[in-house]
Amino acid sequence: MKLSENEASKLIEKLWFRHTDSTIIAVLQDYKTKEVLMVGHMNREAVFKTLTTGYVHFWSLSRKKLWLKGETSGHFQLVEDFKIDCDGDAMVFLVKSVGPVCHTGNRSCFYRNFSDLI
Amino acid sequence: MKLSENEASKLIEKLWFRHTDSTIIAVLQDYKTKEVLMVGHMNREAVFKTLTTGYVHFWSLSRKKLWLKGETSGHFQLVEDFKIDCDGDAMVFLVKSVGPVCHTGNRSCFYRNFSDLI
Repeated sequence: MKLSENEASKLIEKLWFRHTDSTIIAVLQDYKTKEVLMVGHMNREAVFKTLTTGYVHFWSLSRKKLWLKGETSGHFQLVEDFKIDCDGDAMVFLVKSVGPVCHTGNRSCFYRNFSDLI
Repeated sequence: MKLSENEASKLIEKLWFRHTDSTIIAVLQDYKTKEVLMVGHMNREAVFKTLTTGYVHFWSLSRKKLWLKGETSGHFQLVEDFKIDCDGDAMVFLVKSVGPVCHTGNRSCFYRNFSDLI
């Protein structure tokens, strides 16, 4: 799904960019299986690009730059729907994944449980 | 589920407390419906308490203190399972909710969509 630039701007005004580098937290969830795929950060520009293009964009905390998810891997994440939390500092994006979301090749970044770490 | 203090300590050593106030991001997800309920932050102590008691604890970014989720409302969130992401700065907790997770009384904090905000 995509919003118009006007709609996206209105929505962004309601968000609370309280996290590192003036961001919100964005949770990607598979729109069919409901699996949580990844957590990232979005600044105003990343939210705007995500909402108006339908492709997930993040603000990279490490590289300090806007980042179209999949720009190098081709594994774009397409927005099917989204939700905003009660205080506006986090969003859930229900996505259709073109390819694995994780740089390790796993479908989800959350592929480890406690037996993998202890 | 609960871990022993020894297991919890070992797991915590593998995490990357890179976010505000030396925290990781914690996503709560309903263990049955897979609905995303809430996003919060956990410092080392909050992760330790969560893992060893089986009750979700957060670090409150606003109040700058440890916070047992449900301590005032009685709506505790019981850990059924959890996952750790690829770089160790976020976890997903699959929980059984004693009551609504949101202070608004909604089952999930993510109860708003774009038509509620535009």
